[in-house]
Amino acid sequence: MAHRASSSGTRSVQVQQQRRSYASTSWTNGAKLVNPSVFDRYPSNVGILAMDAYFPKSFVKQSDLEIFDGVGKGKYTIGLEQDSMAFTGDREDIYSMSLTAVQNLMEKYNISYKDIGRLEVGTETVLDKSKSIKTVLMTLFEQSGNFNVEGIDTINACYGGTSALLNAVNWVESSSWDGRYALVVTGDIAVYAAGPARPTGGAGVVAMLVGRDAPIVLERGIRGTHMEHVYDFYKPNMSSEYPLVDGKLSITCYFRAIDNCYNHFKSTFNKFYGEKFNMDNADYAIFHSPYTKLVRKSFARLHYLDYLSGSTSSKYSSVPAKLKSLTPDESYTDKELEKTFGELTKGDYSAKVEPSSLLPKQLGNTYTGSLYAGLLSLVSQKSDKDLTNKRVLMFSYGSGLAATMFSFGINGSAKKIKETSRAVERLGERVAITPEDYTKVMKLREDTHHLGNYTPVTPLDTLFPGTYYLEKVDNEKRRYYARK
Amino acid sequence: MAHRASSSGTRSVQVQQQRRSYASTSWTNGAKLVNPSVFDRYPSNVGILAMDAYFPKSFVKQSDLEIFDGVGKGKYTIGLEQDSMAFTGDREDIYSMSLTAVQNLMEKYNISYKDIGRLEVGTETVLDKSKSIKTVLMTLFEQSGNFNVEGIDTINACYGGTSALLNAVNWVESSSWDGRYALVVTGDIAVYAAGPARPTGGAGVVAMLVGRDAPIVLERGIRGTHMEHVYDFYKPNMSSEYPLVDGKLSITCYFRAIDNCYNHFKSTFNKFYGEKFNMDNADYAIFHSPYTKLVRKSFARLHYLDYLSGSTSSKYSSVPAKLKSLTPDESYTDKELEKTFGELTKGDYSAKVEPSSLLPKQLGNTYTGSLYAGLLSLVSQKSDKDLTNKRVLMFSYGSGLAATMFSFGINGSAKKIKETSRAVERLGERVAITPEDYTKVMKLREDTHHLGNYTPVTPLDTLFPGTYYLEKVDNEKRRYYARK
Repeated sequence: MAHRASSSGTRSVQVQQQRRSYASTSWTNGAKLVNPSVFDRYPSNVGILAMDAYFPKSFVKQSDLEIFDGVGKGKYTIGLEQDSMAFTGDREDIYSMSLTAVQNLMEKYNISYKDIGRLEVGTETVLDKSKSIKTVLMTLFEQSGNFNVEGIDTINACYGGTSALLNAVNWVESSSWDGRYALVVTGDIAVYAAGPARPTGGAGVVAMLVGRDAPIVLERGIRGTHMEHVYDFYKPNMSSEYPLVDGKLSITCYFRAIDNCYNHFKSTFNKFYGEKFNMDNADYAIFHSPYTKLVRKSFARLHYLDYLSGSTSSKYSSVPAKLKSLTPDESYTDKELEKTFGELTKGDYSAKVEPSSLLPKQLGNTYTGSLYAGLLSLVSQKSDKDLTNKRVLMFSYGSGLAATMFSFGINGSAKKIKETSRAVERLGERVAITPEDYTKVMKLREDTHHLGNYTPVTPLDTLFPGTYYLEKVDNEKRRYYARK
Repeated sequence: MAHRASSSGTRSVQVQQQRRSYASTSWTNGAKLVNPSVFDRYPSNVGILAMDAYFPKSFVKQSDLEIFDGVGKGKYTIGLEQDSMAFTGDREDIYSMSLTAVQNLMEKYNISYKDIGRLEVGTETVLDKSKSIKTVLMTLFEQSGNFNVEGIDTINACYGGTSALLNAVNWVESSSWDGRYALVVTGDIAVYAAGPARPTGGAGVVAMLVGRDAPIVLERGIRGTHMEHVYDFYKPNMSSEYPLVDGKLSITCYFRAIDNCYNHFKSTFNKFYGEKFNMDNADYAIFHSPYTKLVRKSFARLHYLDYLSGSTSSKYSSVPAKLKSLTPDESYTDKELEKTFGELTKGDYSAKVEPSSLLPKQLGNTYTGSLYAGLLSLVSQKSDKDLTNKRVLMFSYGSGLAATMFSFGINGSAKKIKETSRAVERLGERVAITPEDYTKVMKLREDTHHLGNYTPVTPLDTLFPGTYYLEKVDNEKRRYYARK
């Protein structure tokens, strides 16, 4: 992807000229590409052609939950920066939500199931230790007669969607590709035991169509990954939907992953473009969003890392020098650092990050879906004029941990995604449920989500039209679905 | 991969000349390649550079189990064609076995963890619904300081290893590749509730190093996949290690998947090489092996499919014509068909399939590891002379269901794999345990595998040297390991 220095010092991405640019060395102020021609052999502009998100009709307001939980006003709405939380009763599970997301996407874009050559699901909502959600989604292919569809499920906490997306892009670029589209399905039902973590739940599934000549292009050659073994958030209680969480540790891990991923990302950027990357090179930035406040801090942290790297930008001139000598561990929790860089990046946050926070703020944490709900939020709230030739920095984090920083270049019109998804409008069509009723629904899930020989009781009018729902679970725990 | 007609009518694979062959149209009796040049852009000979299998020191003899279970003599040893079954006590789990498999491979080949750019785990042995085994394996990378390693876990019954392998190959062929190796880790602990399915258990993990210029090359452009939604084998009881199995349905599904995969495989072969594929084109054939008898039947079935396709080979001249008019469903269970094609393929089975059945017969079903334990068995029992330029047909099946047929070409010496793995010798170093003690161990697993605050009791002398083992599980169900 070509990358041009503009007079203002910010960088814009010109994906249109990708293939031509690789053959030229004059496109980036004379800086030399490292082996650019190697990228010429792949299909051009591989990325996201289409996307949609399914989320439930029911939600609970965080301000209502604050009162219900008897916590201080603003604890969830300002402390977490969350507005509301989507949830499902016993009519929906990860199978039904994935069925809905895929079928809606295929209908909205009028795509034939025959044209899909790969489908991979990223999730951490597990109904079966062996059988993949992918196989359940194959029911949608039955009428088309196409069962020749590669890919299964991929799992590591909130990272599965990114893994599925990168695998899909690799497939298109490999000899395995047969010219058809790939589908990436990613999302979760995030629920927590009653207590302080409960308001950080959420629910939603994003479906994406991947192929060549896409408007949202994965930027080649530039990526940073960090994975390590840590118990910050995990689900060893197999019969419970609830995770074990060490919240404080998880924030440290999240920031450490950002540090390492950003380091690798910058290093590959430098190798590829022959220029140093800094946050001015990102037109937008989207983060995995457990809650919005953490995203705000993460965006600030990336600027702190630029500052540590010796940025001479005048915006860092007022930063107290002592912040430079903090150890990484100190820096994760230092209040002065948080305040300084929070203030310093406030304007950029509004411009570059806030547009992607809509769905994460209104749905809550959709785990693997979160980052891509962020992307859909951005596309849904910006015009082509705002987006074209812009670089979107992406940070994906899954506890345990697996994290990758990568980037998209917006190479064409994303208007159809915005118009067919109707994400903003659909948020407005949801129904607010009281915390009392929400709590009853959580109890119902606790008591019934693992049962065989079970018929759900939640009324169908709690669902949007076109939603798949669970009809029954039989004695052998086989699950049956219908569509509203 | 070049493919040459020999005078005997059988086909041999000449992977050495791959790149040159693509540019030529004269190498296959004048048949035309379909768009061959597209494959020139990828690194050459991507496939398996190195492999090893870890299996436990303890096993139980199937002949002993027959007596213990009070079933007819030969029910397991002839009916299933299984010799023995590997198992583990409470000292080993899928984390420890994967740690052992990877560390052993890295030591045997003296590879630095810095040189690994991707690691993906295929399994259906799930200890945590969120945290991947991949993250646990990152502990092995700590000393190297390399945490920039893509890939997580991939799940669908016994298919995960194949998905991980194909993803690794795609990665090497894509722009994501940074020149480093990929590791594929695949295996399971297969245990069943007491009853008729119990002797079809097993345990083992295979680790494979994937990269370019490999001796075992994935044949490009030729593949057939079949996936559908079916409840033949699944694990909806989250707190149990045991699956729910509809054995009869699963065999039907397995055969239907073979039919469909073979169809697609042949069609891509024809497109690519301009020739019709039949079983004479396969020098060896390896199948996912729940038990060896099913593999024997599967090999016979592929010949039945050739016969149905109108093969004029003289070997089918004595086949009763009425077998041609069976419906697919009838053909899955027809006794005359089974007998006719069993007899007819007996010699070819010994030559082409039996060499790959060693580990599956001696370890039992290692689920995702099974197909690759078969490949290691072949390589461990054949000389380079027997293997070079030969095509190995692979059939991967995971219930639920996901299946792929693909092929390897043996392009270089596999001697180092044979010598470092010592698979045959290590089978002889195992210790046979009585069915009584085996049953006690299964009970111990049932009672303890899901516990927190637990210290395993199985003595360490039940383990091979160099084996990782579980030291304890703490109150928060965090797991700690050491190496013998």
